[in-house]
Amino acid sequence: MKIRDITNKDLDFKDLKNLYSQCGFQASNLSTAIEIIERMKEENATVFLTFTANMVASGLRGIFAELCRKKFVDVIITTGGSIDHDIIRTEKDYQLGSFLMDDTLLHREGTNRLGNILVKNECYEFLEQKLKPFLEKLYTKKKSWSPSEFIDELGKEINDEGSFINWAAKNNIPVFSPGITDSAIGLQLHFFKQRHSDFVLDVTGDMSRLSSIVLDSKVTGGIILGGGISKHHAIGVNILRDGFDYAVYVTTASPWDGSLSGARTQEAVSWGKIREKASQITVDCDATIAFPLIISKFLR
Amino acid sequence: MKIRDITNKDLDFKDLKNLYSQCGFQASNLSTAIEIIERMKEENATVFLTFTANMVASGLRGIFAELCRKKFVDVIITTGGSIDHDIIRTEKDYQLGSFLMDDTLLHREGTNRLGNILVKNECYEFLEQKLKPFLEKLYTKKKSWSPSEFIDELGKEINDEGSFINWAAKNNIPVFSPGITDSAIGLQLHFFKQRHSDFVLDVTGDMSRLSSIVLDSKVTGGIILGGGISKHHAIGVNILRDGFDYAVYVTTASPWDGSLSGARTQEAVSWGKIREKASQITVDCDATIAFPLIISKFLR
Amino acid sequence: MKIRDITNKDLDFKDLKNLYSQCGFQASNLSTAIEIIERMKEENATVFLTFTANMVASGLRGIFAELCRKKFVDVIITTGGSIDHDIIRTEKDYQLGSFLMDDTLLHREGTNRLGNILVKNECYEFLEQKLKPFLEKLYTKKKSWSPSEFIDELGKEINDEGSFINWAAKNNIPVFSPGITDSAIGLQLHFFKQRHSDFVLDVTGDMSRLSSIVLDSKVTGGIILGGGISKHHAIGVNILRDGFDYAVYVTTASPWDGSLSGARTQEAVSWGKIREKASQITVDCDATIAFPLIISKFLR
Amino acid sequence: MKIRDITNKDLDFKDLKNLYSQCGFQASNLSTAIEIIERMKEENATVFLTFTANMVASGLRGIFAELCRKKFVDVIITTGGSIDHDIIRTEKDYQLGSFLMDDTLLHREGTNRLGNILVKNECYEFLEQKLKPFLEKLYTKKKSWSPSEFIDELGKEINDEGSFINWAAKNNIPVFSPGITDSAIGLQLHFFKQRHSDFVLDVTGDMSRLSSIVLDSKVTGGIILGGGISKHHAIGVNILRDGFDYAVYVTTASPWDGSLSGARTQEAVSWGKIREKASQITVDCDATIAFPLIISKFLR
Repeated sequence: MKIRDITNKDLDFKDLKNLYSQCGFQASNLSTAIEIIERMKEENATVFLTFTANMVASGLRGIFAELCRKKFVDVIITTGGSIDHDIIRTEKDYQLGSFLMDDTLLHREGTNRLGNILVKNECYEFLEQKLKPFLEKLYTKKKSWSPSEFIDELGKEINDEGSFINWAAKNNIPVFSPGITDSAIGLQLHFFKQRHSDFVLDVTGDMSRLSSIVLDSKVTGGIILGGGISKHHAIGVNILRDGFDYAVYVTTASPWDGSLSGARTQEAVSWGKIREKASQITVDCDATIAFPLIISKFLR
Repeated sequence: MKIRDITNKDLDFKDLKNLYSQCGFQASNLSTAIEIIERMKEENATVFLTFTANMVASGLRGIFAELCRKKFVDVIITTGGSIDHDIIRTEKDYQLGSFLMDDTLLHREGTNRLGNILVKNECYEFLEQKLKPFLEKLYTKKKSWSPSEFIDELGKEINDEGSFINWAAKNNIPVFSPGITDSAIGLQLHFFKQRHSDFVLDVTGDMSRLSSIVLDSKVTGGIILGGGISKHHAIGVNILRDGFDYAVYVTTASPWDGSLSGARTQEAVSWGKIREKASQITVDCDATIAFPLIISKFLR
Repeated sequence: MKIRDITNKDLDFKDLKNLYSQCGFQASNLSTAIEIIERMKEENATVFLTFTANMVASGLRGIFAELCRKKFVDVIITTGGSIDHDIIRTEKDYQLGSFLMDDTLLHREGTNRLGNILVKNECYEFLEQKLKPFLEKLYTKKKSWSPSEFIDELGKEINDEGSFINWAAKNNIPVFSPGITDSAIGLQLHFFKQRHSDFVLDVTGDMSRLSSIVLDSKVTGGIILGGGISKHHAIGVNILRDGFDYAVYVTTASPWDGSLSGARTQEAVSWGKIREKASQITVDCDATIAFPLIISKFLR
Repeated sequence: MKIRDITNKDLDFKDLKNLYSQCGFQASNLSTAIEIIERMKEENATVFLTFTANMVASGLRGIFAELCRKKFVDVIITTGGSIDHDIIRTEKDYQLGSFLMDDTLLHREGTNRLGNILVKNECYEFLEQKLKPFLEKLYTKKKSWSPSEFIDELGKEINDEGSFINWAAKNNIPVFSPGITDSAIGLQLHFFKQRHSDFVLDVTGDMSRLSSIVLDSKVTGGIILGGGISKHHAIGVNILRDGFDYAVYVTTASPWDGSLSGARTQEAVSWGKIREKASQITVDCDATIAFPLIISKFLR
């Protein structure tokens, strides 16, 4: 395919796949990502979506909620911080700041910085108030919960069309979070457990649910935004079926330090986490720019 | 400004500034870039556009040509490789490959790789054939040329609506290239000079032209794509008027090694290369993805 | 402090702090990291060390083990993959490959690639054989374990002076791993639980142990290698005492996407995860190069 | 070669090649870089050293000077800014600051920031005073100079054992700088030319000198620190002999945007800029940390 100069007509953004496909560099990779997701859906793949917590603090939360509302995705894997932000933002606003603010001043005024997004301390107080009665109620039902059961209950509890865990709960999309206690929720669980020592969050409890989904799938596809435990969990569990059939990574990390976060799709092929014949691409871009472009045609 | 979740309606891309503005992270920076360019134009700033050679090998060449055709920019600063690619692509196609091809095999088949763009050896043979008669003709006019004069003549010579140096020549937009001999053109100049030792490319010859533009400008704005000598030359010459009034950087480089390429707009403020009061932003993104988004509203 | 040119005498590496201190850029940051760790130790800080799994696959494992042997660190927080690699490498070798190998060929020959490190499938078979009897034994003691208790038992089980969990167990250094099931161990736990459904890994069980350490510490210091859940868990729990007094980050990630992995030490100040007055530095470098340089004077 | 854990004994840094060789990730690449330079020298290769201007503002300047004093390198290619800093630092000090200083305040106090290195305005005034009489003297000798002739004269003029252009001049090591006018020197040349319009800096004048060195070399090796025009010029001219036999890149840039600065050694193989059979490696690291480690054994 030859490199084609972008024209004015392309710039109406009616066909992003076409606009970017013959541009070269990451533009072409972005176009390939769209194409792979098209095929993923055509093949009725079980779609795994993973993302990091900072993305839920950003405007991408709206897209994640919409993907759950439309049942576009079948499994979500994310961190505890994602659940924190999703709940807080049902009622509290985050503000746009800048990457270069004075963190000492921010600290003194009770504002937490997340890149160029500002989160006031009262947001976490709200979360605490929300979780306390919820945990009491949960505890009356049973004592031991897996993270996905826990998030499912939480999703039912809140009532906000902008929340992805709310839509996931409504539409029976499991949200896995193997490291959930590493979060503000985790801190509340700690305080709760000091009063109720028999309350248990059993992380081994989710493995059967997740592995069943993988083993029951004829075709699987991964949309992996960012790195960390969520990325690894999605590709790791797909070993059980010899790897994803389709995989799209969107990352800002580099592979040269051997990190899982920076690893390209190719590396996962050696592990059987992505199949040899899989359609796969890595897009090197901040997800806040790239993901709206990649996913728009499926939501319009 | 609060963080706002992206909605389906945003995803028609009719208002990119709005779509990205309240998303956070690089999306917000991209939106700010659009806004700064709007203001740059409203203020009738002298607009400096800089880019690296690889971008001219990509589909961005079409945008650069269009910006010259529309006289949207007033000064271009780029590398010799940009001129190479612009001329070659008037008649030869580049192909889309992948970042992971076997470079030994490519070498054996006479194909050069530029990221995921492939350039056949015959492209450079075409350039050689194009330059030989051109240089003879140039030499008959005078013996000593500055890079911008040289590129201007070259731009007039070729006849292709897709070429940015062609449009720049037609519309009297100077194209500066302080390191022009570091290119395939440079190699041809070397061969030419072996036969015509009094042929001279005088790089000091352009400084008066460039500094006059800077000193005569009431307001200046920089659109700086990528780093290197082109970026530095644009911000460096603006010291003469105490810095740019508006500056947008699009980069993939990091500032932590103290490199000019990775330096943020802020660093330029300390040097007087960008004014203290300037509107300025750095967008961390590959230009092939970001620049069509940033510039589209000015070209549609 | 003026910039000082590096001399031949510096290059005996007898005084790395001095060699790098006045060099500028990341060299100076690396020197500052040494100084901060010196002061951390002088103040008898409770030292938290975090790292990612890939580092345990590398030669850094030897340094982690030594830091535990010497009781230089008081708390370790890491991922499940780190435990996988630590155990496997007690008896199996990993091989040096390259970042550019053919992953399809590797997959066919049963070799998994981790950057430029190669791990044969038999390594994971060995891990399985090691874990099966261990889990049975563990289960006879009690049914519910927290991750740190689990790792402690595992550390006692193996007998290898090169293993960091072995030395941690011997020297009562807790190893926390809030996302431990995201690993090969996690997969074995899943198979085990299929036969023993009442086996429980309670992640809330560790929060009391970890928070007590934090609350009982007069001074705390963090040595944070890489990002992800381990980094966040260390700084997150230090909120309970208004933040670390000393913090050294070594990272290859960028802050511009708002990710926790790329966040600099400053951002943590806004959250109260690092104190306003803390001595803190971020070193932008692959840990395999930087950490031996940073830590050598404390181990010689 | 198996991955070997780093031991205390390694940490005396007496054998860096051995310390890092079996560690994996960039440590192993750094060790390979040492080995390639050993072989480069054993084969009596013509050694090309390239670096960016910021490195001359750092402590690496001492190493560059020493490499010229010892005649370890045969050709230097660098930017105009490198010459600026080299001359200024013969008499003026640069100060260590931080990456996060307030650039508006710095600007007001006449301090320019280069990453975490601070350069006072008086430094550039000193450069101006130094260059004015030098240019007058130069002009009396002849009117047209190539950049390498110009730098050679300048190197003879200054008298400082810490200066790399001084040692290069003494030891007849040519210093090429194809984009030299993009610098403070360039600005002075502009002012000078306003008074002496027949003064010429002919960039085509150096191509014969540089290409002769390349064509007369039996074996060539490149030590390429950072990217930009200097990197490209070194590999570009080696096309004339079908590429470097040995190449070491040290970089912080990424290849995913198709940039020359981020391109790995492999990409150059496709172009014939590095030979198919060449020993080559890319080390992903800030040069201020990596280069002292790579080069120390050759200078001690």
